[in-house]
Formats: sequence, C-alpha cells, structure tokens
Amino acid sequence: MEEDSRENVVPGSEEALDTADVRGYDFRGAFDLEEMLSTYETTGFQATHLAEAIDIIREMRDADATVYLTLTSNIVSSGLRETVAALVREGYVDVLITTSGSITEDVIKSAKPFKMGEWDVDEGEMRERGINRLGNIFVPSDRYVWLESYLNDFFPDFFADDPIRTPTEFSRELGKTLDDEDSVLKQAADNDVPVFCPALTDAEVGNFLYYYNQQADQDVGIEILQDYETLIERGMLAEETGLIVLGGGVPKHHAIMTNLFRGGADYAVYVSTGMEGDGSLSGAPPDEAVSWGKIKDEDSTNYTQIQAEATLVVPLLVAAGFELY
Amino acid sequence: MEEDSRENVVPGSEEALDTADVRGYDFRGAFDLEEMLSTYETTGFQATHLAEAIDIIREMRDADATVYLTLTSNIVSSGLRETVAALVREGYVDVLITTSGSITEDVIKSAKPFKMGEWDVDEGEMRERGINRLGNIFVPSDRYVWLESYLNDFFPDFFADDPIRTPTEFSRELGKTLDDEDSVLKQAADNDVPVFCPALTDAEVGNFLYYYNQQADQDVGIEILQDYETLIERGMLAEETGLIVLGGGVPKHHAIMTNLFRGGADYAVYVSTGMEGDGSLSGAPPDEAVSWGKIKDEDSTNYTQIQAEATLVVPLLVAAGFELY
Amino acid sequence: MEEDSRENVVPGSEEALDTADVRGYDFRGAFDLEEMLSTYETTGFQATHLAEAIDIIREMRDADATVYLTLTSNIVSSGLRETVAALVREGYVDVLITTSGSITEDVIKSAKPFKMGEWDVDEGEMRERGINRLGNIFVPSDRYVWLESYLNDFFPDFFADDPIRTPTEFSRELGKTLDDEDSVLKQAADNDVPVFCPALTDAEVGNFLYYYNQQADQDVGIEILQDYETLIERGMLAEETGLIVLGGGVPKHHAIMTNLFRGGADYAVYVSTGMEGDGSLSGAPPDEAVSWGKIKDEDSTNYTQIQAEATLVVPLLVAAGFELY
Amino acid sequence: MEEDSRENVVPGSEEALDTADVRGYDFRGAFDLEEMLSTYETTGFQATHLAEAIDIIREMRDADATVYLTLTSNIVSSGLRETVAALVREGYVDVLITTSGSITEDVIKSAKPFKMGEWDVDEGEMRERGINRLGNIFVPSDRYVWLESYLNDFFPDFFADDPIRTPTEFSRELGKTLDDEDSVLKQAADNDVPVFCPALTDAEVGNFLYYYNQQADQDVGIEILQDYETLIERGMLAEETGLIVLGGGVPKHHAIMTNLFRGGADYAVYVSTGMEGDGSLSGAPPDEAVSWGKIKDEDSTNYTQIQAEATLVVPLLVAAGFELY
Ligand SMILES: NC(=O)c1ccc[n+]([C@@H]2O[C@H](COP(=O)([O-])OP(=O)(O)OC[C@H]3O[C@@H](n4cnc5c(N)ncnc54)[C@H](O)[C@@H]3O)[C@@H](O)[C@H]2O)c1
Ligand SMILES: NC(=O)c1ccc[n+]([C@@H]2O[C@H](COP(=O)([O-])OP(=O)(O)OC[C@H]3O[C@@H](n4cnc5c(N)ncnc54)[C@H](O)[C@@H]3O)[C@@H](O)[C@H]2O)c1
Repeated sequence: MEEDSRENVVPGSEEALDTADVRGYDFRGAFDLEEMLSTYETTGFQATHLAEAIDIIREMRDADATVYLTLTSNIVSSGLRETVAALVREGYVDVLITTSGSITEDVIKSAKPFKMGEWDVDEGEMRERGINRLGNIFVPSDRYVWLESYLNDFFPDFFADDPIRTPTEFSRELGKTLDDEDSVLKQAADNDVPVFCPALTDAEVGNFLYYYNQQADQDVGIEILQDYETLIERGMLAEETGLIVLGGGVPKHHAIMTNLFRGGADYAVYVSTGMEGDGSLSGAPPDEAVSWGKIKDEDSTNYTQIQAEATLVVPLLVAAGFELY
Repeated sequence: MEEDSRENVVPGSEEALDTADVRGYDFRGAFDLEEMLSTYETTGFQATHLAEAIDIIREMRDADATVYLTLTSNIVSSGLRETVAALVREGYVDVLITTSGSITEDVIKSAKPFKMGEWDVDEGEMRERGINRLGNIFVPSDRYVWLESYLNDFFPDFFADDPIRTPTEFSRELGKTLDDEDSVLKQAADNDVPVFCPALTDAEVGNFLYYYNQQADQDVGIEILQDYETLIERGMLAEETGLIVLGGGVPKHHAIMTNLFRGGADYAVYVSTGMEGDGSLSGAPPDEAVSWGKIKDEDSTNYTQIQAEATLVVPLLVAAGFELY
Repeated sequence: MEEDSRENVVPGSEEALDTADVRGYDFRGAFDLEEMLSTYETTGFQATHLAEAIDIIREMRDADATVYLTLTSNIVSSGLRETVAALVREGYVDVLITTSGSITEDVIKSAKPFKMGEWDVDEGEMRERGINRLGNIFVPSDRYVWLESYLNDFFPDFFADDPIRTPTEFSRELGKTLDDEDSVLKQAADNDVPVFCPALTDAEVGNFLYYYNQQADQDVGIEILQDYETLIERGMLAEETGLIVLGGGVPKHHAIMTNLFRGGADYAVYVSTGMEGDGSLSGAPPDEAVSWGKIKDEDSTNYTQIQAEATLVVPLLVAAGFELY
Repeated sequence: MEEDSRENVVPGSEEALDTADVRGYDFRGAFDLEEMLSTYETTGFQATHLAEAIDIIREMRDADATVYLTLTSNIVSSGLRETVAALVREGYVDVLITTSGSITEDVIKSAKPFKMGEWDVDEGEMRERGINRLGNIFVPSDRYVWLESYLNDFFPDFFADDPIRTPTEFSRELGKTLDDEDSVLKQAADNDVPVFCPALTDAEVGNFLYYYNQQADQDVGIEILQDYETLIERGMLAEETGLIVLGGGVPKHHAIMTNLFRGGADYAVYVSTGMEGDGSLSGAPPDEAVSWGKIKDEDSTNYTQIQAEATLVVPLLVAAGFELY
C-alpha cells in the first residue's frame, strides 16, 4: 500500500521556476527602511502587495498621471488626516473623493483636536458624558456645538448668490476659511484639488444644513450631478490616471466608475479590509474592476491591493512611494 | 512547584450562573425550522445573534415601529432582491435607504436577469466578451445598452416640469414605470415606501444622467438636501423606529444619523461583514452608535449584530422574523 | 468627448450566457425551507456556496464515501456539540479530527453545562469570580475541578497496561466512560468512529496529565505517530473520501494531508472564517489544496467553501445534507 | 419640531478629556522612521496597537522577561523566516512554539528556496507540473523528494538509542545538522532555544516518519507529554514571561495555557487576522485570556493585539522593538 501512495506524496517536479526566491529582510548590519521595504517584494502574502503598491505609485509619478486619492471618513478621523493633507500640499494628488464625515471632521480638527480613546467603554455612560466613540478615538460633543456655529457663519456667504451649490464648491469655499496647514480642505482649496463628495448630507454638515433650512426664508440645496460630470470629464482629459483607494464605499466606486469613461484607470492601488466573498464593492479586488473596464489590464502589473487596515500601511506607502522617491 | 500552580490552574468557583445552558438543536425527531432557530439562542457565537435579531424584529413589529431597511447595492445584485421586494410588498418595511447600484440593477432586472457566474475568471477576456463580473454573478454589457434606452425614455418626462429633482422622486417615478412584481422600486412606489439614495450619481444611472445632459439644451440636476430633511422629519414623527441594516456604507449611516434627531432608534439589527478594528462606519457595531445617541440603550437588548454575509442569513431572518410570526 | 467614451461605457455584448438566472426565494405562499435552500443556488455570493455544499454532502452520501468531519475546539464549546454528536450517532460520519479543547469540553459537558454569557465583560473581575470567557460563552472554573477528579479516576485504568497511549485510544476509552447521549466522545466510542487529536496536550486534559505525572512513580506519555499512520491508511483503504471541515487549524490540515496519500479527497466542504490573503492554512480555500493533490479536481464541482461562522450554517447543512435527504 | 431635536443632535459636553490628541506623522522635514512609528500611538485604529506593541516588547526586554515567540507554519513559508531566525540568533527569544510545517519548510529552505508565485492559478495544471501553491508562494515538489532523502539520513541516527522521541528533541537534533545561518532550527539549536511542536506529525515530516516506519523493523514514535511538562515548568521558573504571538492555532494556545500555571504571562503582543466573533481561540483577543488567568491584567497596558497580516508589521515590530532599541 505504501508504494502506491508515493507518486501522490512525492511526485517530484522537473521544472525550474524563474521567479524570485522567497526571502525576507536581513537584519544584520544597520537597519535600512528602504532596503527592508524592498525585501517585502519577496516576503510573500501581503508584504508583497505593499511592495507592489510602492512600485505602482512610483510609476504613477514617473508617468505624471492624474492621481485620485479616495478615502473613507475614518481616515480623517484618524491621524492619517495629516498624511492626506501632506499629499495634497506636496502636489502629489490631483483629485480627492470622500464621504461627508471627512469634511465634517476636517473642519472640526482645524480648531479642536479629536482625543485618543478606547474600544470598550460603557456606551450609555459615554452618551451621558457627551463623548462620542469612533473606534478607539473619542470626539467630545462640544466639537459639534462649535461646528454648528462655525457653519452658521459660513452658510450665509456661501449660499448668498446661489441657493443651490455643489459638494466641490462646498468643500472648496469651506476650505478657504480654515486656518490650519494640516487641514485637508485647506490644502485642497489652496492647491486647486477638488474634493468630491456626492453624499454630502450624510454627516453632521448635513445636519447643520438641515437646521439652517429650518430658519425663516431659507431654502438652500445641494446638487450633485454637476460634480459627477466634472469628475468624468477630468478623467477623460487626463493623459493617464492613477488611483490610490483607501477603504471602499462611494469614494472608491466614484473613482473607478468615472474612469470607465476613459477606458479604465492606468494604475490602481487599493488598501482595504473588505472581504471579497461578500460580493461588495468595498471588498472587490482590482481585478474585478478590469472586467468592467474600470481599470486597465496591463498584465495585472498596473494594480494591486493590500489587505490591511490603512493606518498601518499608508504612512509607509507615502514615505516610500512619495517622500523617499 | 506543582502545588504552587494549582490555585492558578484549578481555582474553582462557587457562583452558580443563572443564564441559560449552552445547548444546540436536537436533531432527533422530525426536523422543525422554528425550533432549530430558537435553539440558536443558546448555541453561542453568531447563532445567538441571529436568534436575538429574530426577537428584535418581532418586537419592532409588535410595537408597530417605523421600519427602516438599509441595503448596499449588491443586495439587489443578488437573489436577495426578491426578498427585499417581498418585505416592501407585505408592508413590513416603511423606509428604504440604499446606494445607486441598487436602483440601476433593480431596473435592469425588471427586464433582463443577471446570470450566475464565477469568482475566478480571466478578467481581460471578460472585458473583451462584454461580461461584467460582480462577485460570482455575471452581468452582460447589453443590460446597460438596454438601460440607457429605457432611461432615455424616462428622463424627458421626469424632468419635464422641474430640471432639478431628488433621489426619492427619481426612484418613485422610475418604479412606477416598471412592470415586475419582484422589483424593489415598483413595490416601493406602489406601497408609498420612499427610497432614499443620496449618492444617486454613483452608478450607471449617474452615467446616463451625464449623457443625457450632454444633449443640447439639457441641464438637469439632482438635489439631495430636501430628501435628507424628509428623512430626518420622518424619524422625528415616528412613535418608534426600528432599523434593519444590511451591510454598511452610506445607507447604514444615513439611517442612524437621522435617528439621532429623535434621540436614537428604538431597535436595530445589523447584518455585516465589516471589521470593527478598522474604525470604519461599516464595521462599527451597534453599541458604538449608542455613544452617539443614534441608537437607544435599553440594557443592550434592543440591538444586535450578526457578523455574516447577508445572503446566508437574511432569508432566515425574514422567514422567522416576518413570515412565520 | 462624450462620444469617445461610449464604447467604453456601453460596449454592449452579443453572447447569451447559458448559466442560471440570479433569483432568490419567492416568499409568496407557505414557507418551505428546502425550497428556500434550493434557491440559495441562484442567490449568489455565499448562499450559492451553501447550496453547493449541500449538494456535495448529498453526493458524498450517495457515493457512500468515508466521511471525515474536522472541527476546531470551539465547535464543541458551542451548541454545535449536540449536532456533531448527532452526525456520529446517525452513522453519517466515519472519522473525527479535532483539537484537545473539544475532548476536554465534551467530557465536562457530559456532566455540567456551559452557560450563555457575553462578549464584553470586565475580564479581571471575571478571573476573580472564577468565570472563564470563551467568546459569548461562560465556563465556571468549578468545571475544571470536577474534570480533574474525573480524569484522576480515569487515568490509572487507562494507563494501567501501557504507560504510553495514543490520542485515539484516549478519546475512545474516555468516551466509553461517559453517560450522555449528546456526548461526541461517547457517540464516537459507541459507533467506532475514531477521534484523532494529535496535539492532545494543548488543553486542560494536558494540564491534568501533567499533574498526574507529578505524582510519585508516574511516567505516562502520549504517542502520536501511530495515529497518523492509522489515519493515512484509513484514507488509502477507502473507496472514496469526503471531508467536512469546520474551521481550520491542525484538524483541517490533518484531513487533507492524509488524503494526499490516496491522491486527494473526492469531496470537500469547508466552513470557515479564515482570510485567504494571510497565506494561512486555515484561510486557504479548497482550490489551494488541489495544487498539492490533497483534494481531487473534478472540474471544481467536488468542493466548495462557505465563508461563514459555523454556528450560522452548520445546522442548515446537517438538516439539508443529511436529515432531510 | 426642530428645537426638540437639538438636545439630541448637539448636546454639547463640558468635560475636557486628558488623553492625547489624535495626530499623525508630520511629513515635513527629513523622514524619520522611529519618529513616524512613535506617532502611530496617536494615529488611532490599528496603528495605535502597533505602537503599543513596540512599547510592550521594549518592556519585556527591559524586564529581561523569558520571551516566547509563537508562529504558525506560514510565517516560515514567507520571508519572515529570516526575521525569526534573526530574533533567535540575537538572543531576543527564549522559547519557540510552532506547528509542523515550520519545521518541514525550514529544513527545505536551508537547501532550496521557495519561489514567488501568484494567488490565482490553474490548480489542476499546477498539480500536473508538480508545483504546490501556498498563498502567493510556489513550492516545487522536488523539494519534498529532497527532504525525504535528507530525513532518511537523519532518522536512523536520531532514533538509534531511543525509538520514542519528543518534538523538541526532533527539532534540536535536526537543527544541528543544518548548514544555514538563516535557518530557524539551526539558530534555535545553536542558541539553546527549544522549539515546541506538539502536532509534529501534521506536515511532511510526519509523512516521512510514516514511510520510515513502513520499513522492516522500524517502529519509532513521537511522545508529546514530556515536552508539555517542560514547557509548563519553564514558565513556572521564569521571573517574568512575555509572549509574541504571530497568528493563532495550537502555538498561541500552547503559550497561554502553559503560562496559566504561573498565574499568567506578564506581557503579550498578538498579531492576528483572526475574527473575534467566531469564538475561536485564534480570534480571541488578549483580554479573553485574562479571564482564564492566562495573561495577567496590569490595567490592560501589558498586552495588545494588532489586527494585521504578519508580513506587513512583524519587520517593523522587530526593527523598533529590538533592533533600534
Ligand atoms: N468618521 C466617520 O467614519 C464618519 C463620520 C460621519 C459620517 N460618516 C458617514 O458614514 C458613511 C459611511 O462611511 P464611508 O463610506 O466613509 O466608509 P466606511 O467607514 O463605511 O468604510 C467602507 C469600507 O472601507 C473599508 N475601510 C474603512 N476603513 C478602513 C481602514 N481604516 N483601512 C482599510 N479599509 C477600510 C472597509 O472595508 C469598509 O467596509 C459616509 O456617508 C460618511 O460620511 C462617517
Ligand atoms: N474551546 C476552545 O476553543 C479551546 C479550549 C481549549 C483548548 N483549545 C486549544 O486551542 C488550540 C487552537 O484551537 P483550534 O486549533 O481548535 O482552532 P482555532 O479556534 O484556533 O480556529 C482555527 C481557525 O478556524 C476557523 N474557525 C474557528 N472557529 C470558527 C467558526 N466558528 N466558524 C468558522 N470558522 C471558524 C478560523 O479561521 C480560525 O482561525 C487547540 O490546540 C485547542 O485544543 C481551544
């Protein structure tokens, strides 16, 4: 019986594979971050994807591609806000697409910080104390009192000439009012980087627009189709486009869908915790977008996905893809 | 040395816990689904959450709560479309909140089915063949040719009196034109269930709105603040509200954020694959919403979350929470 | 510009796909579980995999395959213990492979139940109270006091003739002593189903073996190679083999590795929450095992994986794959 | 109606939180890795956990704790093998606990590299070609032909005096034969670091032990209780213990279970992709172990978990926790 099994268990193989050897960083000698990240290429699993992402970002830059950065709101909640602002400030990014929490929270943070917190708390007691929990971050409720008053100063000017405005106008005009070099909106406004945010109502800025409209004589509105047209055309006019997609949701889809008009993005890097098997847009890897024509297919070397929580890898991506390149 | 360790290893305990024994279904005798689901309560892990969800849905119904169903677009891509339509048809649901792919795909499916496919394919070849992959579902591109022509018939009437319309108007008027009892939009239109969709542009309906506006003399738009106001006020007017949240993203947040105005939803059931540790809104469990006042806190018995891909559990939830109750 | 984009956005397609339409359960009429589960086939995402799993299990049974059930310890911690015992009792399963917590906890549960608990507790206080938390299940520490005394009765007989025994002997002889028809070990002993558990020391049974050996004159041991040989040969002698793999870890790998000797398992159903992208054995889908020859490749129709927490789907699998078939 | 809602929407808060401000790395100026990693502390989400992990590892070292490193087999499959070997070589680690694939593959890699591969391949064709896929790593089958012959040289000596040996003896004696400074087993043997591996049969070393026993007159075995006793006593004799847990499974549990005898580990850092909600040991966060007394509870500051795929973060942990400290 034993011998019958040998061809199954030790079939052998003749072929010599010509891909790289799997081999990690050599910790002997002085530590060198760039060298370490370059060994990620041959470390396997997600490290390989991080190394690919760095390469693709460098290619985007060499090609002078129009770079889209998409981000979920919690990126701004976290300390990645300063990193995103830096990318805009340094001119590395041409288009931002996000959700409304980003805008809300970027404005707050320009005046009042969020505070480090904990995941496990007594939530009922937190509500009593007026402390909102956002993962392991705490946002005291006085931030929203301040925000309402700040926006109530802003709204009358903003809607003065036209009661119906777009999300890109909203974020640009609001960004101009901010006095914080680490603000995403301020940097975007200063550097002519539009901030797309179709579901603008879906956060506290929406709440305060609602309250504003409750006042006598107010009937302002937010129109979103014009922005969509602008975004589509920006893509069609670009020589090449590159996507850096942090998290999923509407921002991710907005970027790939509008790139369909130009025949697909040329480069794409996704950072995501999404699960492919749930059939969600957030969990869909870049190759799914290829079948739709939303990302181009250059032998699959023009896109990658890192399955990771963004705060762990984005600073490394920025360091190696932009700062140290 | 051994004896020193015994107080650590076998400390013992005096206290008799008065919670239920962990015990699963007894497969002896004829199989009984309801009995099986009731033993999920004492099965532990996620089964317990499914049993809690069934209880909470039954409470929502007993309390005659205003029920919000939120869904990501892929719910409509999948065979859960028919289940959602059934919930609306039977009057079990009062408010729908979704993203634009749901609207796009519900219209297509009213005329042309999606087809079963596979996860792993040659994506470049798929693009050549005009077959779009959506998880393990295939959507031939002719569906979008058909959709454009269908919408091009619809748009002139829809925008005839007012070039600026809202997403709820869009879905209601479009739903009225459909001839399919399994259509979510049609059932919603017929049963006066509004379909909220703030990021309406972010799918193929947006693309065809763009093309429509390219035509001479067209300048239509989508205004989203009015819908947000309606949704807020619907919540404030309700005696009690209950949320059934399938997936995350904008629809989930729209539901909980607008419930903040009324002091929180009374009941909430989440079904999600999201990861709490990424600090995302999609991954945030119901208790995070308690700290914000978006869900009420009745000793934590008024909300639960099932960590599961929706297609596996939603039919069971609907069967046990609605049909068999 | 618009026209340039149309071939990208609406390329159309000629090909008519001959796969099934995506379509979910029709809730009109009296509810029928089997009908509902059969519509899972065309529901997409993980529901499709659950339907495939039911089909494959039915094929295993039609083929009279030798069925291996592998389970992580927490399956026995949960209410799935009774389900596993039922599968053995009904003769549906021929080989069990598990980890040591299963054996430990099955013995305890034969005398003293585990109790329903909560995920979020004050862990330091729990330690004081002598209540161990296992997910949302509580295990009072007196269970382990009882277990030690039970095992101290068992060990002298068990090791009487031979101080070196195997895990399969351990679980069989221990199972024979139990007086609980819902015990996995008892049913396995009564029905000649071996329980493989190579890492037998890695739970409280290991702890009490340690204490036993501390006593004067004791020097017992656990030998694991003989069991591995038995398992390999059982596979080689089987006409056909089918694997039902609940969770990952050593039990999963033990099943597929030993099936390599026979040229691969004929059927395989995985239920797992593992993540493919971490390169783990637990996260590896069945197709990875095909490249190793551990699972046969019959056009990929002989295996599937359901990405789900086991308590949600295993009772359904058992109902539809065994009880109602 | 509006006014009623204001106390819900903008309740305000008085309390000034005294935790740190959420704030990320400042990319202005020359890039500084250590500075960047120190800002992870206030970046939120998982970055905060990485910063905590670095702190805890530094504390382990300052306290001269006995350091346990546990690793799943795929860590050795990947380029982290060299990192683990470095930790042992530098004397940073005192105990290794792993599964059998690590031992198998470390031996192979001492002579023949693994090769970079891809996730998506034609698995049936791979089997034909004799190329085994392990995530995105390829292992040609000739490696196992070589391994068998290597082990067939090793076995006669190893079992010469005693046909029943332990896993720690196996890995130590095998490690001594290897000629590769990047081998985990060799470094462990050279530095008197024991390699615990209770389920030693569960990989190709088990297969070749089986074949060895098929030969006339052979009847060797692997006894695992003695190792368990050694591991327990090592823990009891240590002044302080610190756990670095890469992945879950048997190695993780072996470390925490044996630390129970001493009243819990003093420090613990987990790196895991496991899901808490499945009730698995692999997904259980450190605080669950506190209720069992397996980890001590020093105001929760002595343990943390990073939810991440290990290849992304382990080199950073080693750099900041060991090399640059
Ligand atoms: N701070 C907030 O998160 C916040 C505040 C106010 C309003 N909102 C609103 O909630 C709605 C939903 O939020 P969203 O659409 O921005 O995204 P989301 O938080 O729902 O995330 C979408 C997906 O992105 C991925 N993702 C998120 N965070 C990640 C991370 N740290 N690392 C890797 N992947 C990650 C996950 O797969 C997730 O499922 C939006 O309308 C938003 O405006 C959010
Ligand atoms: N009750 C316990 O869990 C328990 C008790 C005592 C000892 N132990 C020991 O801990 C060690 C590790 O445990 P293990 O190897 O049994 O497995 P595990 O709990 O570590 O799980 C391994 C993998 O299986 C999958 N999985 C686990 N539970 C699942 C579920 N409910 N649904 C779907 N997938 C699931 C996950 O991907 C997980 O990573 C073993 O040696 C065991 O004896 C465990």
